[in-house]
Amino acid sequence: MAEAAANGEARGGGVPRPTNPMVTPLLTDLYQFTMAYAYWKAGKHLDRAVFDLYFRKNPFGGEFTIFGGLEECIRFIANFKFTEEEIKFLRSVMPTCEDGFFEYLSSIDCSDVEVYAIPEGYVVFPKVPLMRIEGPVAVVQLLETPFLSLVNYASLVTTNAARHRLVAGKSKNLLEFGLRRAQGPDGGISASRYSYMGGFDATSNVAAGRLFGIPIRGTHSHAFVSSFMGLDEITDKALTSSDGSNKCEDFVSLVQNWLTKIQDGSSLHGTFGETSQSELAAFTSYALAFPNSFLALVDTYDVMRSGVPNFCAVALALNDMGYKAVGIRLDSGDLAYLSVETRKFFHSVEKDFGIVGFGKMNITASNDLNEETIDALNKQGHEVDAFGIGTYLVTCYAQAALGCVFKLVEINKQPRIKLSEDVTKVSIPCKKKCYRLYGKEGYPLVDIMTGEDEPGPKIGERLLCRHPFNESKRAHVVPQHVEELLKCYWPGKSCKRKC
Amino acid sequence: MAEAAANGEARGGGVPRPTNPMVTPLLTDLYQFTMAYAYWKAGKHLDRAVFDLYFRKNPFGGEFTIFGGLEECIRFIANFKFTEEEIKFLRSVMPTCEDGFFEYLSSIDCSDVEVYAIPEGYVVFPKVPLMRIEGPVAVVQLLETPFLSLVNYASLVTTNAARHRLVAGKSKNLLEFGLRRAQGPDGGISASRYSYMGGFDATSNVAAGRLFGIPIRGTHSHAFVSSFMGLDEITDKALTSSDGSNKCEDFVSLVQNWLTKIQDGSSLHGTFGETSQSELAAFTSYALAFPNSFLALVDTYDVMRSGVPNFCAVALALNDMGYKAVGIRLDSGDLAYLSVETRKFFHSVEKDFGIVGFGKMNITASNDLNEETIDALNKQGHEVDAFGIGTYLVTCYAQAALGCVFKLVEINKQPRIKLSEDVTKVSIPCKKKCYRLYGKEGYPLVDIMTGEDEPGPKIGERLLCRHPFNESKRAHVVPQHVEELLKCYWPGKSCKRKC
Repeated sequence: MAEAAANGEARGGGVPRPTNPMVTPLLTDLYQFTMAYAYWKAGKHLDRAVFDLYFRKNPFGGEFTIFGGLEECIRFIANFKFTEEEIKFLRSVMPTCEDGFFEYLSSIDCSDVEVYAIPEGYVVFPKVPLMRIEGPVAVVQLLETPFLSLVNYASLVTTNAARHRLVAGKSKNLLEFGLRRAQGPDGGISASRYSYMGGFDATSNVAAGRLFGIPIRGTHSHAFVSSFMGLDEITDKALTSSDGSNKCEDFVSLVQNWLTKIQDGSSLHGTFGETSQSELAAFTSYALAFPNSFLALVDTYDVMRSGVPNFCAVALALNDMGYKAVGIRLDSGDLAYLSVETRKFFHSVEKDFGIVGFGKMNITASNDLNEETIDALNKQGHEVDAFGIGTYLVTCYAQAALGCVFKLVEINKQPRIKLSEDVTKVSIPCKKKCYRLYGKEGYPLVDIMTGEDEPGPKIGERLLCRHPFNESKRAHVVPQHVEELLKCYWPGKSCKRKC
Repeated sequence: MAEAAANGEARGGGVPRPTNPMVTPLLTDLYQFTMAYAYWKAGKHLDRAVFDLYFRKNPFGGEFTIFGGLEECIRFIANFKFTEEEIKFLRSVMPTCEDGFFEYLSSIDCSDVEVYAIPEGYVVFPKVPLMRIEGPVAVVQLLETPFLSLVNYASLVTTNAARHRLVAGKSKNLLEFGLRRAQGPDGGISASRYSYMGGFDATSNVAAGRLFGIPIRGTHSHAFVSSFMGLDEITDKALTSSDGSNKCEDFVSLVQNWLTKIQDGSSLHGTFGETSQSELAAFTSYALAFPNSFLALVDTYDVMRSGVPNFCAVALALNDMGYKAVGIRLDSGDLAYLSVETRKFFHSVEKDFGIVGFGKMNITASNDLNEETIDALNKQGHEVDAFGIGTYLVTCYAQAALGCVFKLVEINKQPRIKLSEDVTKVSIPCKKKCYRLYGKEGYPLVDIMTGEDEPGPKIGERLLCRHPFNESKRAHVVPQHVEELLKCYWPGKSCKRKC
C-alpha cells in the first residue's frame, strides 16, 4: 500500500512519522506563520528562545495529572519539513510576504531544536514544565500548536483513565469502549491508546489495538440479539466438544433442555417464566460461533427474567461439551442490584447442578459509567468484575480540556515573562531545571524548579520550598534521592552526542 | 508525495477517501467482527437489515441539533474494502474463526448497502433518523462504529458553533481558535470544519483552511511581544507607503513621534504613562512585516496603560503611510470594560487627530469565551466586533458528547425493537419515512415519521401528531408544503439508477 508505506516511512533519522498522517507542519495556527514572517523580517528569526510547555491546574478537581503525548511530539519534530505543496499553499495565504521567507521556511527542520521533557506516563503537577523546548524562535513557535494539540488531550485522557483505575480498584478489569462517542476518529484512537497508558486493560477499538498492541475485547450488541426471530433460524446446530472427542448434532436441543431444567428442576423454579426466544437463538448462535469465549449481553429484553436464564442455559450446554462460558454484560438498569441478583442466580446454578466455578462467572457492566457512578456502585455493593467505559472516559466529560500552554521564558539568554490581568496567567520566567525529591521511604515528596544555573538540591540537605498543594504554605524537605525531571529527548545539533 | 496521492485517490467510483486516512474499516469495535462471524456461521450474514442512526436528546439543554458528518460517512462506504494486511490482523485477533469467514470479509464492499439521510447542515431533532442504512446485516453492523464516530462529534460541534452564532448575533465576526485545546489533531481539524458549517467566519487552523477552503486568520501571540527587548532591535526601519509613492526611512521614529503626541498633545494626556518598549518594538516590527493587516494583541503587559496607546501610535504612523490598521485583540481581563475603554480611546484619537474612521477600529476578544460569557458580555454592554473562541467551542465543554446511536429497526422485512430497563433507550421499530411539514409562512412546523408503506402527509390535510417539544401533548398541523427528509445518498446495487 502506497499509503501504509508513506505512513510508516521513517524520515527523521529512524524516528517514525506521527501516528496520524494529518499531523503535518501545517497543523498549526496561522499566527505562528505570521509571527515567523515578522521575526524573519526583523532578522530575529534565529534568536535562541526557550519555551515551557505546562498546565496551570490539575484536571477533574484532582491533585495529579499524567503526562501523555511526548512520543508523538518527538515523531513530529523528527519529521518536520515542509513539502513544496505546503509552501505553495502558505504563499497563497500570505500573499504579501517576500519570497525569501518562503525559501527560509523550505529550508528549516528541527535539527537546531532541543527538547527536554519529563518521561511520558509520569505523574506531573501544575506549573512544572512537562517539556522545555529551545531553538530558533521562529521554528519553536511553529511547534507550539501541534505540541499542545498532541499533549493536551493525551495527558487529559491518560489522567482520566488513571482516575477511573483508582476508583475501580486494582482487581477489576477496565475496558475502554469509547470509539463511537469520541471527538472524531483520532480522538477515538488516542483515547484507546492513552486509556491503556492510564491503566485500562483493553479496548474495543480494533484500529487502536493494531496500532499500539492493546488487547482488544468485544462480543455482541443488542442488534445481534434482536436480529434473531427464534431457534428455528439456526440451521447448523452441531458442536464438536472442546477436546474434539465427541460431537453434539443438536446443540439447540441441548440448550433447550437445560433451560427447561433451570425453569422446572432447580431452586430457581418460579423466579422467571418464558424467556425471549429471539434472545435464546442469538445466544445459542453466538456460542456456536465462539464456544471458547461465550459472553452474552443480557439486557435486550429483561435481565433477570430472560437474559440471565437464557445465558445460563447456553453456558450449561457448553459445559456439557467441555467449554467454559466467560460471563455476561449488563448495559442498562440498576447495575448494583442486577449484578448482585445475577451473582445469586449463578451461585444457585452452581449449587443445583454441581457445576464448580459457575458462581464465579464474569459480570461486566457498561452504560454511561464514570468515576462517580463506579464510586456509587462501590458504596452500594455490587458483583461487577469488569467495567466497560466509553463516553465519560474518552470525551473527558467531567472536564473536556486540560489547558496546557506554551510560553516563552527566555530569549537570547534574557528571561521573559508574560504579565496578565489574570494573575494565574502570569508566566514563570527563565530557563529552568526541575527536580523530583524523594523521601526516606522512596516516595516522591515534591517537585521543585530552579534557574538553569542555580545549584540543584542535594541529598540530605534541608530545603525550604512552597507546599506542593497549598501555595500559601511553605515546607521543609530533606531529599533522600533527587531525580532530574527534564531529560533530553531531542538533542539539538550543538549537542547531538550529549544525550 | 506518495501519501498525498494515496489520500486523494478516489476508489469508490469517484468519491474521495475519508479526509482522515485513519478512517479505515478497522476503525470499529471488535464486536462488529465477532457478530459478523456469528452471523456468517449461522448463515444469516446476508439477511437484509435496516438500521436507524439517531440521537435521543438535543445537546446543551437546547431544542435543536445540526447534522454534520454525512459526507465523511459516504466517503467511508464508497471506499470500504479490507486490505490484505487488515484481514491478516483480523485473523490474528480471531484465531478460532474459520477461513471462509475471512474470505467473505475480503470480498465485501458497500455496493449492497443503501444510505438515506437528512442533508448535512439541516436542523434535526431527537428520535428522527439522521440516516437510514439498509443492507446485509453483517456489513451494515461493520459501519455502526465508524458512522457514529464520524457523525457524533461533527453534529455536536456544528450545533455548538450555531449556538455561539445565535448568541453572538449576525453582525459579529466569529473566529475558531481551538486547535491547541481540541481532543487530538483530528478533533481540531473536524472542529474547524464543522464550526465553519455551523456559522463561524474563519479559523486559525491552517491545515483545516487548506483542506476545506475555510478563511484563515491570525496575527501574533504574547510570546511575540515578550520576545522583543526594545526598539533598538529593529534594524530595517524603512517602510514604503501603500501607494508606493514615498518611503519612510525611519518608521520607528515615526511611531515614537506619534506616541509622544498621544501622550502629551491629546485629550488622552495623563491617562497613561510610559508604555512597554518591548511591546512597542513588537508592534512596530509586526506592522513593518504586515502594514496592510496590522492587528495587535494588547494585553501582554497592561491593556489601557500600554497596549492600546502603543497600538494607536503604530496605527497612526501606518496611517501616515497610507495604510489602515485593522485593530486589536484582547485576551484577558474584563472584556466588556476593556472593550468600552478601548473604543473611547479610539474615538479620542479620531477626534484629536482628525483621523476619520479610527474610532471604528476592530476589537477582537478571546480568552475562554463561550455561550454564557458572550451572553454576559451582551448584557453588560461591550464594544467587541469579533470573538475568537477555542476550548469551549471545540471540546463542546458544556456537553462533550452527543450520544447518537445506531439501532436495528427491521430485518428481513420484520420490525425489530430493543427493549430496555431505561425507557428512553427503547428503540422505535420499523423502516421509516420522515417528513418535514411547513406552514403557511414557509417555516417548518414539525418533523414526523411514518412506516415505509404508510401514506405520507398531504398538503392541506389536517394531521394529528405529537407536539414536537412536549411529548405528552398532541397538536394538529395542516402542512402547506411537505419535504421528504431522508434522501438517497448511497444507492444500493439494486437501485443504482434510482437516485
